[in-house]
Amino acid sequence: MATMQAVVLKKAYEIAVEEVPKPSELGSGEVLLKVEQTAICGTDLGPYSGKLELEDDVRIGHEFLGTITDVGPGVNLFDAGDRVVVSCVVNCGHCYLCRKNQPGKCMGVMIFGLGLTFGNLDGGQAEYVIVPNADLCCRKLPEGGAGTDEDYLFVGDIMATGYESVRAAFEPGDTVAVVGAGPVGLCAAMSAVALGARQVVVIDRVAERLKEAESYGAITVNPDETDPVDAVLDLTDWRGADVVVDAAGHSSALNLAFRLPRAGGSLSVPAVYVDETLDLPWGEIWLKGIRLVASGAMNIPRYMDETLALIAAGKLNPARMISHRMPMSQAAEAYRLFYERQATKIILDPTR
Amino acid sequence: MATMQAVVLKKAYEIAVEEVPKPSELGSGEVLLKVEQTAICGTDLGPYSGKLELEDDVRIGHEFLGTITDVGPGVNLFDAGDRVVVSCVVNCGHCYLCRKNQPGKCMGVMIFGLGLTFGNLDGGQAEYVIVPNADLCCRKLPEGGAGTDEDYLFVGDIMATGYESVRAAFEPGDTVAVVGAGPVGLCAAMSAVALGARQVVVIDRVAERLKEAESYGAITVNPDETDPVDAVLDLTDWRGADVVVDAAGHSSALNLAFRLPRAGGSLSVPAVYVDETLDLPWGEIWLKGIRLVASGAMNIPRYMDETLALIAAGKLNPARMISHRMPMSQAAEAYRLFYERQATKIILDPTR
Amino acid sequence: MATMQAVVLKKAYEIAVEEVPKPSELGSGEVLLKVEQTAICGTDLGPYSGKLELEDDVRIGHEFLGTITDVGPGVNLFDAGDRVVVSCVVNCGHCYLCRKNQPGKCMGVMIFGLGLTFGNLDGGQAEYVIVPNADLCCRKLPEGGAGTDEDYLFVGDIMATGYESVRAAFEPGDTVAVVGAGPVGLCAAMSAVALGARQVVVIDRVAERLKEAESYGAITVNPDETDPVDAVLDLTDWRGADVVVDAAGHSSALNLAFRLPRAGGSLSVPAVYVDETLDLPWGEIWLKGIRLVASGAMNIPRYMDETLALIAAGKLNPARMISHRMPMSQAAEAYRLFYERQATKIILDPTR
Amino acid sequence: MATMQAVVLKKAYEIAVEEVPKPSELGSGEVLLKVEQTAICGTDLGPYSGKLELEDDVRIGHEFLGTITDVGPGVNLFDAGDRVVVSCVVNCGHCYLCRKNQPGKCMGVMIFGLGLTFGNLDGGQAEYVIVPNADLCCRKLPEGGAGTDEDYLFVGDIMATGYESVRAAFEPGDTVAVVGAGPVGLCAAMSAVALGARQVVVIDRVAERLKEAESYGAITVNPDETDPVDAVLDLTDWRGADVVVDAAGHSSALNLAFRLPRAGGSLSVPAVYVDETLDLPWGEIWLKGIRLVASGAMNIPRYMDETLALIAAGKLNPARMISHRMPMSQAAEAYRLFYERQATKIILDPTR
Repeated sequence: MATMQAVVLKKAYEIAVEEVPKPSELGSGEVLLKVEQTAICGTDLGPYSGKLELEDDVRIGHEFLGTITDVGPGVNLFDAGDRVVVSCVVNCGHCYLCRKNQPGKCMGVMIFGLGLTFGNLDGGQAEYVIVPNADLCCRKLPEGGAGTDEDYLFVGDIMATGYESVRAAFEPGDTVAVVGAGPVGLCAAMSAVALGARQVVVIDRVAERLKEAESYGAITVNPDETDPVDAVLDLTDWRGADVVVDAAGHSSALNLAFRLPRAGGSLSVPAVYVDETLDLPWGEIWLKGIRLVASGAMNIPRYMDETLALIAAGKLNPARMISHRMPMSQAAEAYRLFYERQATKIILDPTR
Repeated sequence: MATMQAVVLKKAYEIAVEEVPKPSELGSGEVLLKVEQTAICGTDLGPYSGKLELEDDVRIGHEFLGTITDVGPGVNLFDAGDRVVVSCVVNCGHCYLCRKNQPGKCMGVMIFGLGLTFGNLDGGQAEYVIVPNADLCCRKLPEGGAGTDEDYLFVGDIMATGYESVRAAFEPGDTVAVVGAGPVGLCAAMSAVALGARQVVVIDRVAERLKEAESYGAITVNPDETDPVDAVLDLTDWRGADVVVDAAGHSSALNLAFRLPRAGGSLSVPAVYVDETLDLPWGEIWLKGIRLVASGAMNIPRYMDETLALIAAGKLNPARMISHRMPMSQAAEAYRLFYERQATKIILDPTR
Repeated sequence: MATMQAVVLKKAYEIAVEEVPKPSELGSGEVLLKVEQTAICGTDLGPYSGKLELEDDVRIGHEFLGTITDVGPGVNLFDAGDRVVVSCVVNCGHCYLCRKNQPGKCMGVMIFGLGLTFGNLDGGQAEYVIVPNADLCCRKLPEGGAGTDEDYLFVGDIMATGYESVRAAFEPGDTVAVVGAGPVGLCAAMSAVALGARQVVVIDRVAERLKEAESYGAITVNPDETDPVDAVLDLTDWRGADVVVDAAGHSSALNLAFRLPRAGGSLSVPAVYVDETLDLPWGEIWLKGIRLVASGAMNIPRYMDETLALIAAGKLNPARMISHRMPMSQAAEAYRLFYERQATKIILDPTR
Repeated sequence: MATMQAVVLKKAYEIAVEEVPKPSELGSGEVLLKVEQTAICGTDLGPYSGKLELEDDVRIGHEFLGTITDVGPGVNLFDAGDRVVVSCVVNCGHCYLCRKNQPGKCMGVMIFGLGLTFGNLDGGQAEYVIVPNADLCCRKLPEGGAGTDEDYLFVGDIMATGYESVRAAFEPGDTVAVVGAGPVGLCAAMSAVALGARQVVVIDRVAERLKEAESYGAITVNPDETDPVDAVLDLTDWRGADVVVDAAGHSSALNLAFRLPRAGGSLSVPAVYVDETLDLPWGEIWLKGIRLVASGAMNIPRYMDETLALIAAGKLNPARMISHRMPMSQAAEAYRLFYERQATKIILDPTR
């Protein structure tokens, strides 16, 4: 039986690269993908740190692209040899919520590499991975566009996530404020610029992150130096931002984020929350008529086409955020670096 | 100097009907309206009970219709003799937020009869009232339609408010759940039926209110008898409601309301809240991706045309909610009845 | 080998009911449907009359419902025993145009019973029919709603077609004018009422059709008696209709239809046209800024859920249009009656 | 009585710069504007050439910006000293069509400098001009943005017109094809780039225009060298463009434009047509389900905010199209040059 290398989360904080059986049998709608690039995502830190409890020995990873090497029955759009990026979210395409065009809320939604709760799909930090519902969750890489593989890679998760957080609430000319300049926040800021924002305000404490945001044309605010609410009011004739994105994911960021929109403005929360309840400024939310949009939405398959097109057109360049390129064999070290915030974004090469 | 009768809130809990000067001078864009019908609104109970603090001696009332008797300079759409209903919300029509089509969030928004904070407009529980920005906030009563004056009256506030709470989040065929069957909740339920809901679920504890909701075709749930969450899940293949309306306005209702939408569904909150902060089920809100829509929106001028048309077409019949018709001279008694919840909706006749 | 009865178009004007092999082998995504009701559609008259040229011996019919008796591999939503209605349009669910939510324009679109050009699918005027992409094009019949099988039947074609023609252009309170009160026109009129039109104007020359439209609450105009343009202007303060539907399908109707919308209004053309070019009132189209919407759109799968829900809610009753119920064995006679306009809508019973 | 210089169209082909009375009395809602820059627009060639017949001695010009020197009663947003650009279209802000957010179709619409038919407003090619409904049709120039006066100038007409032609039909990532690279076509192409098009195809015969379009990132096609239909199909996997803009304005361009959209795609026609009827490819229009959008729409006031914001953000640079800057005293010569197509866009300076 053929084997391959795969990243396995043995248990919390313990990453191994192991020899596992190479998948061979393909079911209806499935393709076999030879993974060429895979990234570590902030969401992977949930299982890594034990905050999100998985079974032992889960093959993880949900940001990846590569070349299709085999095609199961009932696949229509793809052939062996096609190079594709894959949505981390796999939807069914025909349930009530898919028909409402909300694939991230699909009643049978699956996510790669997150264990039994999310459909028991093996992850993509491996030499090969089986992709179910390939017609729905794969997209061919654009030919002849401005993007590189390292750009297109992120369309399967953080790029589409950051993009949706803006796109679902946005009109051209709007002022957009982003709380938190991690990878998703930077993708949101980049998207706001690409879609025609009047101005994009990025709020974070880390100098390099702010510098990166500035390179996209954003105005940056370090809350240790300037009150973000004042800064946003100052930039908007004392109205507040049209669209606010909380890409930080903790209670104080959320409370700040609720104070930034103008009356009738929107708040979008791509950041991940696990708190059951929170004390929220309901008076301000209600009085201002703040709209909560695209929070926890995860409609990746819906926004892959647009983000691929915008990368191809040279408007989005997520590869800029990559800080480390490492062999997959060093996955344990890579996870450690990422967990300790010594890396913005790490790409693993499964062939090394 | 000519005088007239007007309802005056002397201070909390003290209503008087007094002889006051009849308005005579009209500024640019203003009309003088001879009031023919005026209603007491739930919002009036804020000042009445002192919960919303006003100055002393405020002329109150913001639901009214009548005949224009005089027209100031710069009014284009109306002539003396026109019969109109008036939006309780007066917007400017040209600020940033009006241009975003959110008149309820107008940067110079005024509301009749709510004192200095809301623009110091005398209220409409009077024989005459001056209406500013008449071209924007008045609408002629439809001719030859199915509605009566008592139906059209509510378009200036509760009918448009209940309507927006559904309309802003709704697709035909949706299941709509309404928490609280007071006047706004009943208007929301009625709107959901008129716009083509698959089913409308109304949740309240008061038997007559539920009976009224049933007469519009709603399915009713008394939470003392049935768990509303179970009831809604049961009616929707265990998904939850597409659109939920909180028309109740207290913390426990809001917490219930957040549990009723399906994944990716919407919550709309026309009910009035004064709490500064609330403990909210953020985990469920985020995980389900609940969208908060039209909460505290008050875009009355935007929805008057549609509600007038639907009344004229026989699809909305808000006059059914009227429980009492009284002379304006008995306003003090009327307020007492309404405050003590002995009346669903009271109409005052300014000529008696 | 098992056999069954099926309606076969031998050649133009020649309908036979023949003994043919009963389908047995099911491919990926396919179900076998025991047809319980099937209708003759205006579109069937194209092949019948030879206007739309097909191969000889095509099994026709594309409006049908029944019970699933067998399920192929890769079908997720359905089991044997499920009662479903089937979209006449079968889309792939994943091409560029399906992803743009325009299934009627799917790059691999197929239609039942219209020969090789439309994917070579056997028609549904038969005892059994194979349904491909069943998860996308079948919908379970609602349980416990107000509709009957004869209502739900039409959701697979004319009901969804008439509905889309209004829905895609409509706001509640609009005035809708429908040119042509054949089955699609009546479905459009019924939809406008269900969605909350202010008024619906139906234009036709046939008295019974107008009577039927009146029974839905429409205002009717016979162009032999009243100028339709005058009538519509008269009903709309000299503006014109907000939404106009051309459900007639000939050049003079189209020219009339272009004269009915208000400035900035919409024209929707569900009627079928085969003319290559037409002389059109471009001056009026351009100056008025008429929007052409949902013309030839055929997005049936997108609108089945909403129409099923509205039938279940008692808002749409297309079965009212049925004029004849006949055994399928009399299909030749049924086609003759329908072609000679002696029937509004004919239902065939495949078991007789 | 004070006098001023103004451009007067004496009769067809005869332009004079004359001493006329300076406006002094301001009505309700009016401001007096000291014009600082004004442009000649393609639309001005209608009256100039006599194709659009005006009265004699009309003061023309409808693209201008300047400083407010006096403010009439009932103006809320502006003070003397404010620098503003003015919409060529003046709407009322409260009629049925304004309330439908279609100001270009306002029932009392006026346009500067186009004679009695369009409200008898004196034109802006003058030292001073009265602007009615100033709160609705003026916008302050953004402070501190990337644009210059010469950029903002065009927001009052061609920039907003070209922008709307794309914006009203567009989704990010779309392929946009523009027929005709005159000023409006170039504004449309620029807008498509700014809003996030995948690719923009510009079709024209004039080499410099194509070169200009290329400088915005467009792909250009000269129909004398390449079949535009083939070119567009080639760039879109044989689908056709998502959005097509006809900015040319003659029958053959329109027929080409109708052949370029994909199935379910859109055609927008900002170009001006005066033909009463045209022979159109209705078969293709219907079968493809082409949507006609924003044709002859002229909703300038609706799109000024967005275009101003995008200029301020450095995303739109219409000033690039200016080929000539001349003193207003040479208006006759300027009109001749523009009419003979020796100039792309001419700016007149009223102070010289």
